[in-house]
Amino acid sequence: MTGVALPSWNDGAAKSAILDFVARVTTPGSPEFVPPPERIATFDNDGTLWCEQPLQPQVFFLIDRVKELANLDPGMKERQPYKALLEQDYKTLLSLGKQALMELAFATHAGVTDELFNDIAEDWFRKKSNPKFGRLFKECIYRPQVELLGFLRDNGFKTFIVSGGGIDFIRAFAEEAYGILREQVIGSSVKTHCEIKGDRVSVVKLSELSSFDDREEKVVNIGRHIGRRPILAFGNSDGDLAMLRYVLSGPGLRLSLLVHHDDPEREVAYDREFKLSPLAEGLDKAGQYGITLVSMKNDWSTVFGGS
Amino acid sequence: MTGVALPSWNDGAAKSAILDFVARVTTPGSPEFVPPPERIATFDNDGTLWCEQPLQPQVFFLIDRVKELANLDPGMKERQPYKALLEQDYKTLLSLGKQALMELAFATHAGVTDELFNDIAEDWFRKKSNPKFGRLFKECIYRPQVELLGFLRDNGFKTFIVSGGGIDFIRAFAEEAYGILREQVIGSSVKTHCEIKGDRVSVVKLSELSSFDDREEKVVNIGRHIGRRPILAFGNSDGDLAMLRYVLSGPGLRLSLLVHHDDPEREVAYDREFKLSPLAEGLDKAGQYGITLVSMKNDWSTVFGGS
Repeated sequence: MTGVALPSWNDGAAKSAILDFVARVTTPGSPEFVPPPERIATFDNDGTLWCEQPLQPQVFFLIDRVKELANLDPGMKERQPYKALLEQDYKTLLSLGKQALMELAFATHAGVTDELFNDIAEDWFRKKSNPKFGRLFKECIYRPQVELLGFLRDNGFKTFIVSGGGIDFIRAFAEEAYGILREQVIGSSVKTHCEIKGDRVSVVKLSELSSFDDREEKVVNIGRHIGRRPILAFGNSDGDLAMLRYVLSGPGLRLSLLVHHDDPEREVAYDREFKLSPLAEGLDKAGQYGITLVSMKNDWSTVFGGS
Repeated sequence: MTGVALPSWNDGAAKSAILDFVARVTTPGSPEFVPPPERIATFDNDGTLWCEQPLQPQVFFLIDRVKELANLDPGMKERQPYKALLEQDYKTLLSLGKQALMELAFATHAGVTDELFNDIAEDWFRKKSNPKFGRLFKECIYRPQVELLGFLRDNGFKTFIVSGGGIDFIRAFAEEAYGILREQVIGSSVKTHCEIKGDRVSVVKLSELSSFDDREEKVVNIGRHIGRRPILAFGNSDGDLAMLRYVLSGPGLRLSLLVHHDDPEREVAYDREFKLSPLAEGLDKAGQYGITLVSMKNDWSTVFGGS
């Protein structure tokens, strides 16, 4: 299996760690065998499964939503933070921080049903391209990771996304892009309301944040949604460290990995300085924490594209 | 398949409705065909999958937990509501209502990790019996429903529990009893905290309620956890009506069912008068809402026991 699995991963320590881990937890009779119901793998999304440069795709979705709303309310164009959004003033946007951007995104969705939101997001994914790479956002996914997700599922794992991005935004493309089912997506969310009008019962979004699924909150949400400590986790920023360390502190064999974006030729080189999603503690303490670093430049033979 | 499926269901309108529904949504080329990712079925637990008489099993679990705590704090035995709990004063307990009982249950779990809670609950399930039926609580599950869950999964459905009971209490027995995985259990929950002590990362329960998963909140939690409107739902009380009507108001073929407990010889006859979980609106409006009533007495040839 080693010869054909993960073709877009170069031979090296990271690929070996993955193949060795999967072999050991899936070999019946091995002291490290893990029964299939416990084979849970959790992946961050932005920067781990797809490109988050120059900004997370959901920020571009937010810009487009605000544009539509500004057509109905022209005064919006002069008010911050909408002005910065509409002018794609990245410096101002970055200074707001990721949670503020997510909350803004949520505010624009208040009053929309879950199902209408999904239609809006699916339509956006069909049309919209990343301005830096000139390809559809949903095609700016990392081929080595799509292979890894499939390889894990072929080995009896269940693959979950645990992202700071909006849960329903990710659900609108994750089945097609990654083969990850809607119920296996965990993300940031707003509170919702069950609306009953005559015989019609719907879930309607409110403008109040329910959960910002970042850092320690990722662990809390894994407890809520999955109810079981994963045995493998994959991230790319300090926002993933609590999840990666949660995985590693369970009993038995565990594997936690971090993508390091060190590939300016094929993607972008960034870590400590990217305000929306810094990787600093993770770089400094990967060894101490027992986390395997994955170099995009050295460990991946291909970056973009589905399987 | 009709001849062998659901052997503990008597021939009749309810069994026919189920077999007909499953055949139509799973026949390729049928106008009512539903692709497997969308074959979501949600089941209430108390009174729908297992017996909730004389009280929900979790109330007995609560009594046992309070007994243990009272050994450490003898004054507790004289304070309400602990006094009523310890004396198994059902009248007082019923007067508190289901949410108050759940909140009490939660209060007794504050400070416990998710994993320690699971060990405590699994140990309890191994030992404790229903006082009315003299069999282990985990064996007071309804055989026809266990057959139905398996039949649905054999037909490509994913089966979820959506219960007012505690999410982690149910997770401690649902895989063994029903074949329902931990991540497919939705229930009431407390807030939790991610605790990091040295290298050890844990999820620790707090005493504050996060979600009382009853009535409209069941629909809200289906949106959060599953992100997709189910096509089949099964309940037994007015607390399930919002979920059943949510299912029925989606497009295409849908099926919602309610167990009516009308079998005093094999179980208990109750509906409107059971304060913790009344069935009144459901009986009065099942026809108007398009919900199929299932008579325990007439539709089930056997009541208790696993498959």
